[in-house]
Amino acid sequence: MKAAVWHGVKDVRVEDVELKPLKDDEVVVRVAWAGICGSDLHEYLEGPVFIPVDAPEELTGGHAPLTMGHEFSGVIDKIGANVTDWKVGDHVSINPTVTHEVRPDGDDVYDGYAFIGLSTDGGFTSFVNVPAKNLLHLPEDFPLDLAATIEPTAVAVQAVKEGGLKFGETVAIFGAGPIGVLVAAAAKAAGATKIIAVDLSEVRLQKALEMGATDVINPAEVNAIEKIHELVPGGVDVSFEVAGVQPTFTQAIDATKARGTLVIVSIFAHPIQFDPMQLMNAGVKLTTTIAYSKKTFQQTVDLVTSGQIDVKPVITKKIELDKIVTDGFDALVADKSQAKILVDLTK
Amino acid sequence: MKAAVWHGVKDVRVEDVELKPLKDDEVVVRVAWAGICGSDLHEYLEGPVFIPVDAPEELTGGHAPLTMGHEFSGVIDKIGANVTDWKVGDHVSINPTVTHEVRPDGDDVYDGYAFIGLSTDGGFTSFVNVPAKNLLHLPEDFPLDLAATIEPTAVAVQAVKEGGLKFGETVAIFGAGPIGVLVAAAAKAAGATKIIAVDLSEVRLQKALEMGATDVINPAEVNAIEKIHELVPGGVDVSFEVAGVQPTFTQAIDATKARGTLVIVSIFAHPIQFDPMQLMNAGVKLTTTIAYSKKTFQQTVDLVTSGQIDVKPVITKKIELDKIVTDGFDALVADKSQAKILVDLTK
Repeated sequence: MKAAVWHGVKDVRVEDVELKPLKDDEVVVRVAWAGICGSDLHEYLEGPVFIPVDAPEELTGGHAPLTMGHEFSGVIDKIGANVTDWKVGDHVSINPTVTHEVRPDGDDVYDGYAFIGLSTDGGFTSFVNVPAKNLLHLPEDFPLDLAATIEPTAVAVQAVKEGGLKFGETVAIFGAGPIGVLVAAAAKAAGATKIIAVDLSEVRLQKALEMGATDVINPAEVNAIEKIHELVPGGVDVSFEVAGVQPTFTQAIDATKARGTLVIVSIFAHPIQFDPMQLMNAGVKLTTTIAYSKKTFQQTVDLVTSGQIDVKPVITKKIELDKIVTDGFDALVADKSQAKILVDLTK
Repeated sequence: MKAAVWHGVKDVRVEDVELKPLKDDEVVVRVAWAGICGSDLHEYLEGPVFIPVDAPEELTGGHAPLTMGHEFSGVIDKIGANVTDWKVGDHVSINPTVTHEVRPDGDDVYDGYAFIGLSTDGGFTSFVNVPAKNLLHLPEDFPLDLAATIEPTAVAVQAVKEGGLKFGETVAIFGAGPIGVLVAAAAKAAGATKIIAVDLSEVRLQKALEMGATDVINPAEVNAIEKIHELVPGGVDVSFEVAGVQPTFTQAIDATKARGTLVIVSIFAHPIQFDPMQLMNAGVKLTTTIAYSKKTFQQTVDLVTSGQIDVKPVITKKIELDKIVTDGFDALVADKSQAKILVDLTK
């Protein structure tokens, strides 16, 4: 079967691979749709970041070259000897996160983590072996293309939970890329009233509005902080830094009310300058989020399949596996109008 | 009467002043003891920081030259016309913080604040007018010298509350100056089990032990982070940054467990370098504290007068008002063994 295999930086090849032998606690998933993530781009453009190269990864035993793809949905094709809760034909969402599972759910990522599709073979192919414990049930009538967005949506749901957002509160989101707009959708599902998205790209701001933002601000045109305080006097309850750069970090503090929370969602490529007095005078609490707990992933399956989070607008393009590099990775880099690009593996 | 009056940087004069006319909502406090705070030192060495010079301060109407001293205790000497809840002879602790009081208690400092003794005349003198609402009752048998330490202790109590410390949890304190050792005492009173103080000064570490620290680390001698993780595998529940410099900020993150909290207590003179990924990978939540709520001040009066927080060891010297500059300010700068120096105004 064909698979998109990471061999090295700027070297992702669509080539023939063999499915590995099925372990007793695994199932074979026939992949339906798989999304391209920012992490995939990082691995392609400047990797390896997560991908193990020199030695097998501790948690999964995987190493490069490996099949990428950690945002995918599919149908169970075969069952391992010890798997009892699943049957062939079940529609599934895959939680690709692998942890040591010695700490409570949610804390365990801080003890180290790996991803199916980054540390071992993932979903940019037709069939993949997945441990049964990484599967979540999907209703059979729920479209499998939408289900491929559950994983990034879980990141957004976790971020909103980390912010301690309460029903009726207000949020500001700095950065309206794929995760930023999913944070808008998650905040809307959580009952936020004002959902303000800030980005320099008009097309991304339009996407944010489609996904649930109530207001959008382009800081190239207006003073974002003044505008936010005009919309929400005193500042928002929770802000999200989803751009990963110095200016939005500083602005996100200023946008947040005293005793409100700023959640860092994005990966910062570089250290930044930080004035603790800005945080102290603002009275803003700072927290971060990584991935999602198992509980959050299940909640996200429920929120997405019920339609409380409408993920449809985040999907901006569907492509063939053969063209994953040009129509997928390269398109995401070049075209700000792209949010989530899905690879079609149904054929 | 004599008072220590701030005229300018490096220009604090002990000189004769007149007591201002008493307002209807004020009482005259006959000052007993007044402590010298780090803020007083800042005003003396590099001020004005808080002290209003060019115009009357918004909340208090005060301006330089003014009598310093915001950590003091005393006895009511005279009652304003509209003051009903107090009588001459009452022993009092003074909450010197003045706010707009339009927000809930505790949030209102983020709407602006001033201090009796920094923005208007304070306690480095024999008599001072204090609004009745800034007074707190002291038991008559509680020593007034110890009561002069309630204000800085309230800062420490607020910091411990901000950290969300729970009964039985563990803490690390970076910086064992006066506030650092009071944080140790407050953490002990809150039922912390391991209370680890980190400082380069042996004499300060000894003081931390006296005040409640269970373990002390001198990072000049051992790797502080390794030692903390040896004492508390996985890291402490709550850490306190009370040194105000880059290395302790970075270390405090590393000392704290995933999902634990780092509380910035100190005033940072300069911005620092910050790697958001350090915070994200550690899973540490970052918060700050300023002053204290009215509720915290009352709780601190209760904790100190009951003896649950033993403030006695923090007092390292008692001096005469005449010598406040040489024996007070200069001594605090020169001598690391000094924690809290009290000015005796009982004579």
